[in-house]
Amino acid sequence: MKGKRLNIGIIGYKFMGKAHSNAWAKVGQFFDLPATPVLKVACGRNLNNVTAFAEKWGWEEVETDWKQVVSRDDIDIIDIALPQHLHYEIAVEAAKHGKHIFCEKPIAMDVEQATEMYNVSEANGIVHYLNHNYRRVPAIALAKQLITDNVIGEIYHWRSAYQQDWITDPNFPLSWQLQEEYAKAGPHWDLNSHAVDLAHFLVGDIQDVMAMTTNFIKERPLANPDCVGSLKVEAISTEKGEVTVEDAALMMVNFKNGAVGSFEATRFANGRKNKLSFEVYGSKGSLTFNLERMNELEYYSEQDADGVKGFRTISVTEDVHPYVKHWWPAGHIIGYEHTFVHAAADFITAVSEAGSIAPNFKDGISIIEVLEAGLKSSLEKRVVSIK
Amino acid sequence: MKGKRLNIGIIGYKFMGKAHSNAWAKVGQFFDLPATPVLKVACGRNLNNVTAFAEKWGWEEVETDWKQVVSRDDIDIIDIALPQHLHYEIAVEAAKHGKHIFCEKPIAMDVEQATEMYNVSEANGIVHYLNHNYRRVPAIALAKQLITDNVIGEIYHWRSAYQQDWITDPNFPLSWQLQEEYAKAGPHWDLNSHAVDLAHFLVGDIQDVMAMTTNFIKERPLANPDCVGSLKVEAISTEKGEVTVEDAALMMVNFKNGAVGSFEATRFANGRKNKLSFEVYGSKGSLTFNLERMNELEYYSEQDADGVKGFRTISVTEDVHPYVKHWWPAGHIIGYEHTFVHAAADFITAVSEAGSIAPNFKDGISIIEVLEAGLKSSLEKRVVSIK
Amino acid sequence: MKGKRLNIGIIGYKFMGKAHSNAWAKVGQFFDLPATPVLKVACGRNLNNVTAFAEKWGWEEVETDWKQVVSRDDIDIIDIALPQHLHYEIAVEAAKHGKHIFCEKPIAMDVEQATEMYNVSEANGIVHYLNHNYRRVPAIALAKQLITDNVIGEIYHWRSAYQQDWITDPNFPLSWQLQEEYAKAGPHWDLNSHAVDLAHFLVGDIQDVMAMTTNFIKERPLANPDCVGSLKVEAISTEKGEVTVEDAALMMVNFKNGAVGSFEATRFANGRKNKLSFEVYGSKGSLTFNLERMNELEYYSEQDADGVKGFRTISVTEDVHPYVKHWWPAGHIIGYEHTFVHAAADFITAVSEAGSIAPNFKDGISIIEVLEAGLKSSLEKRVVSIK
Amino acid sequence: MKGKRLNIGIIGYKFMGKAHSNAWAKVGQFFDLPATPVLKVACGRNLNNVTAFAEKWGWEEVETDWKQVVSRDDIDIIDIALPQHLHYEIAVEAAKHGKHIFCEKPIAMDVEQATEMYNVSEANGIVHYLNHNYRRVPAIALAKQLITDNVIGEIYHWRSAYQQDWITDPNFPLSWQLQEEYAKAGPHWDLNSHAVDLAHFLVGDIQDVMAMTTNFIKERPLANPDCVGSLKVEAISTEKGEVTVEDAALMMVNFKNGAVGSFEATRFANGRKNKLSFEVYGSKGSLTFNLERMNELEYYSEQDADGVKGFRTISVTEDVHPYVKHWWPAGHIIGYEHTFVHAAADFITAVSEAGSIAPNFKDGISIIEVLEAGLKSSLEKRVVSIK
Repeated sequence: MKGKRLNIGIIGYKFMGKAHSNAWAKVGQFFDLPATPVLKVACGRNLNNVTAFAEKWGWEEVETDWKQVVSRDDIDIIDIALPQHLHYEIAVEAAKHGKHIFCEKPIAMDVEQATEMYNVSEANGIVHYLNHNYRRVPAIALAKQLITDNVIGEIYHWRSAYQQDWITDPNFPLSWQLQEEYAKAGPHWDLNSHAVDLAHFLVGDIQDVMAMTTNFIKERPLANPDCVGSLKVEAISTEKGEVTVEDAALMMVNFKNGAVGSFEATRFANGRKNKLSFEVYGSKGSLTFNLERMNELEYYSEQDADGVKGFRTISVTEDVHPYVKHWWPAGHIIGYEHTFVHAAADFITAVSEAGSIAPNFKDGISIIEVLEAGLKSSLEKRVVSIK
Repeated sequence: MKGKRLNIGIIGYKFMGKAHSNAWAKVGQFFDLPATPVLKVACGRNLNNVTAFAEKWGWEEVETDWKQVVSRDDIDIIDIALPQHLHYEIAVEAAKHGKHIFCEKPIAMDVEQATEMYNVSEANGIVHYLNHNYRRVPAIALAKQLITDNVIGEIYHWRSAYQQDWITDPNFPLSWQLQEEYAKAGPHWDLNSHAVDLAHFLVGDIQDVMAMTTNFIKERPLANPDCVGSLKVEAISTEKGEVTVEDAALMMVNFKNGAVGSFEATRFANGRKNKLSFEVYGSKGSLTFNLERMNELEYYSEQDADGVKGFRTISVTEDVHPYVKHWWPAGHIIGYEHTFVHAAADFITAVSEAGSIAPNFKDGISIIEVLEAGLKSSLEKRVVSIK
Repeated sequence: MKGKRLNIGIIGYKFMGKAHSNAWAKVGQFFDLPATPVLKVACGRNLNNVTAFAEKWGWEEVETDWKQVVSRDDIDIIDIALPQHLHYEIAVEAAKHGKHIFCEKPIAMDVEQATEMYNVSEANGIVHYLNHNYRRVPAIALAKQLITDNVIGEIYHWRSAYQQDWITDPNFPLSWQLQEEYAKAGPHWDLNSHAVDLAHFLVGDIQDVMAMTTNFIKERPLANPDCVGSLKVEAISTEKGEVTVEDAALMMVNFKNGAVGSFEATRFANGRKNKLSFEVYGSKGSLTFNLERMNELEYYSEQDADGVKGFRTISVTEDVHPYVKHWWPAGHIIGYEHTFVHAAADFITAVSEAGSIAPNFKDGISIIEVLEAGLKSSLEKRVVSIK
Repeated sequence: MKGKRLNIGIIGYKFMGKAHSNAWAKVGQFFDLPATPVLKVACGRNLNNVTAFAEKWGWEEVETDWKQVVSRDDIDIIDIALPQHLHYEIAVEAAKHGKHIFCEKPIAMDVEQATEMYNVSEANGIVHYLNHNYRRVPAIALAKQLITDNVIGEIYHWRSAYQQDWITDPNFPLSWQLQEEYAKAGPHWDLNSHAVDLAHFLVGDIQDVMAMTTNFIKERPLANPDCVGSLKVEAISTEKGEVTVEDAALMMVNFKNGAVGSFEATRFANGRKNKLSFEVYGSKGSLTFNLERMNELEYYSEQDADGVKGFRTISVTEDVHPYVKHWWPAGHIIGYEHTFVHAAADFITAVSEAGSIAPNFKDGISIIEVLEAGLKSSLEKRVVSIK
């Protein structure tokens, strides 16, 4: 144990609860941190479930009322590991109590919520982090370095797609992600929020947007309402309900710096499990990335000698690469969960050094502005400008 | 020599003249045809150049006036191997003389030209072929078979990009392809015409379109005007002229069958030489293709057993695959030029058997309708429907 | 905490100490185990270092004399996380004290050591595990399933290579791995032990062997002797010492079942960081694997329909795949360290259920027999049979 | 038609007859040659077949007795497009008549034949070429350039495999390639001759050899004897005959320059159609190649900046690459048959400029020496040195 102890209260214990707990438990073993994260209290509505969760992950205490957690004096950090419709209320309350916030993505249900989350956080001087964890994939952090170092040059193209296939079966039930009241939108909100965050990170601000959304399957069997936040969803009825979010979203944008970009988000790409891919083309070079091979970055340099130019596959597993020296020798790959550990490390550092971290609630506002413009464009069938 | 002799007159002797001549010369050696194509007369404005060309490729005669060629009684086929601004006049005249037409793509400068080319051709009962040669890449022909045989199921997504990088250098001169009067548009016309043709072929008709175009480099050194149709372009001046076509075009569409599609065409993707790639996602399976690896098709089947599903790379070089039995044993790949030979074989068969062939001028109209809708959408910043 | 508590004493705190500790700490969070592993005592010769290590990983106590650890009544499991020259003495002593053993690979310095380790272990009824962890890469476990289920058929070929590049720099110092007294041999011992283990696992027993070894760099700067077991090695002198192990080893074998196999192990393959790859060709299908993309298995089925045969890339990240349901949703990859967690889970299960686990010391003997036959073949320049 | 006319007599009209004829017919259209190859006479034992062949490919005359062809005064070049057991007699006779020889590989049935072919050729001052055509794949020619330019440095490793699967079916008949009297040996002769030629070309001379051969299927249905030289083989009987060549061969070598090498040749690698692959690892960089993607070369440079090192995929389709400027624009790939055209171009140049060309009969001797040493090693189960 080193430095100050930082007590964490986590709210949510399903998919993201597991991923975040693993990060808090592991980060001190691989990173030398200026403070020690303490897994203090886990909160969920079902006492049995949250107790089992806490025991497994080493959370010292349990709680069923999140308001109790955010108002405790001994808590330094609130970790919001819940679906997006629950972020706003908790984040605002936590910020008012001066708690630093580690918040799962997408930030919220609309720009108004995101803006208030940001304003209250700033007013209370807390560190706020929005967990678009892919910025901390070493290959993407390397991409950022290469762009910052101007080895890619002026950027012309951003081309991305986030493709999954988990609802192609028409009998897959009407889970919370398919209902507007919980999810706001479909892959456009869930997946494009990641892609837009990366586009902001790697290319820059977006000026205007054209988008198109569609539904392939309009009704599905009703699901167990307890599924919210969980990966396992069961149908509870042969009765069907309406799918109230899109199944796929396409979007084209102009960036303020003159680049053009495309986004595609879908849950109907059979064979793609979690394929977030992007291509960046610039005046000096190009980059491509595929999350299903997240330890690799492809890089093309126009500066290479004639005759030997080509996309090179960088195994982003060397000590010289971002975050990697904390893990294993070169060629020994890391996985999905490691990005959460990187986020935890940077967040603990930001909190203990009174700094800030990106992406945060301000970045969250920008993302939502683009996503909302996309939904508007899709409805109005025209270009929508970002203010 | 078998069957009837079919005398060909080719107009144009540059890049496409070479590719077409090679096809006519070679097709009879690899395919058993119902008639024999005869390289009768080559036509070009520069007598020296066209004479050298004819000698190299075995064209029996030369001519400098295309009107002489299309009106000769002994000519059966007119091969238009010229840039798009020259197609219309020659095609209409050739059709009026009852010549069968093998026409390079893109079909023409606008829907009106394309429509008249089609109407006159039909009125004169000729066989008309529009050389979107990629339909006859064996891997793409296999993709068509798989879709037709319903192994892909209902199609949800078409995702394509045609990426090149030959004008990323700002000092690359103002070649004919960068001037609206010769080229009509940039990669949207040149490259997206191929991609739209394949989307029509594999997915179906398009209902509405949103598009966006942009220019990265606005002015370039003036080029030698003799470059039209040629691959080699020299700057002739330090003086610059305006680039009057787009450098990149993005497009999203709704297909009439409910699928959504995206297109991206650019000459600014550093590292991509001639990368036409597409992905098709359907309810039963998926397909991906990349022209730079044109002997391969990737296929995912949702019907594969649990635990062993995955995209398989089919080496489309076996006798069971379209066109392949005419070439070499399995694993011995073919190249770009072979697609022209396939087109020549099917065209000769269509002509000698009084049949028709696709794509033809009717398909050309459909392609241009979509491309024009894209240009309009880009200007008006809204969705444009195809009538 | 569930079931019986199993107290672990770990000996060694460098690269493997870290990997093993992570596994013990993490396994209970992701797997439901019949017993609870307790990180009881960490042992190393340097008190300061081992104390820091224990604090970081949560080992309750520290010790500098391994004999004290293996003789403690309250210890159930000895984890030998040390280089191979130290395994024999500790394992034999631990077994005599009735401790279950989790032993790092390669098992020992020769067949005699390995055999005694096995005999004493069996005589004392302990569970012994040899950590050839790659058997528990999900993709390799899937390969085993496919072979066992006879979807590959009769196996004709095993083709493997384990390629690294960490000593291509002639100034890389004379680390312990390059000295026979510590390492016994070079990549033939370190890397081929993994490959031979996998060949035994997937193909079967080996009958005879031809091998060839070589050295590219004969002398290197002397290294800090404290480096043993560590990944970081510093030269301490400009003085040079002799490299006493091979730099590369090639081996061909006949398997008892008629298959033929090849092995290649090297530290001189520039660009390959930790590339263990293999190909298996059988009468019904084929498999290929590459550790640098360890979440993928390529599978070819001769039973696929004509026209759509090809190697398919299986993303071995679905719940139906071995070990995967304990981690994340499909497409969310895992990394190198997860194989140690899988080993820990299976080992704890074996210990608590009085079972056995593979690979174990018996498998270790078989591996060493093949490796020794390889060294002998290389010296005698002839085929050497395995008894 | 340019320069001197060089009259060619081809002997053989099956698979290689087709590939060679295509090369002679096409080479003048794509290359500016100092002389003009003339397809003068085609020779085969079956008059009907050879007549049809000649008509298709434009051979002016036909002949059924090869001795008539090699003794004609008007013939400049003898093209031996026959299986290996027929090379020796024809080549020696042709050389004695002063004909230049373009000879298919593998050169002959043993070192004695190859040596006499070479000696008589030299004595008669003819140009002799042995068609190991893969040296003229642009990607391999580029690999040679990179090695010659010392960008790969001192070579440590050659690792190659030539894998096919055309006889995995036990009912595939006993074609000539499976009979020692026609083929001398199996894939070791047919496929390893290519790989050894490339190893000589790219790495250097071989010093000693260890090899292992095996048979998976010992008897097969008898085949139509007319199949010799053809790709299509039919069983003519349910009666079976003995397979008298190996099904697979493994070989390890020491090169004279200190590199080590491995070779694997098989017709039992299900899913591999014509996969000749190799890897070269050197002190400054590495190269890999795969014939099924023959337009690509992978190159790793140890000189690249830290953090961006990786294997780059060079699309060997640019004008700066060997042979490519004669074909199509960048990214437009070529195929298998183009290597024959490159060979024809270089051969015509060598003949008309009284030069020599590689590989030739001297190279053929070296290849056979290695292959024979391999067969001997396999029999005697020990290392065999090349004299």
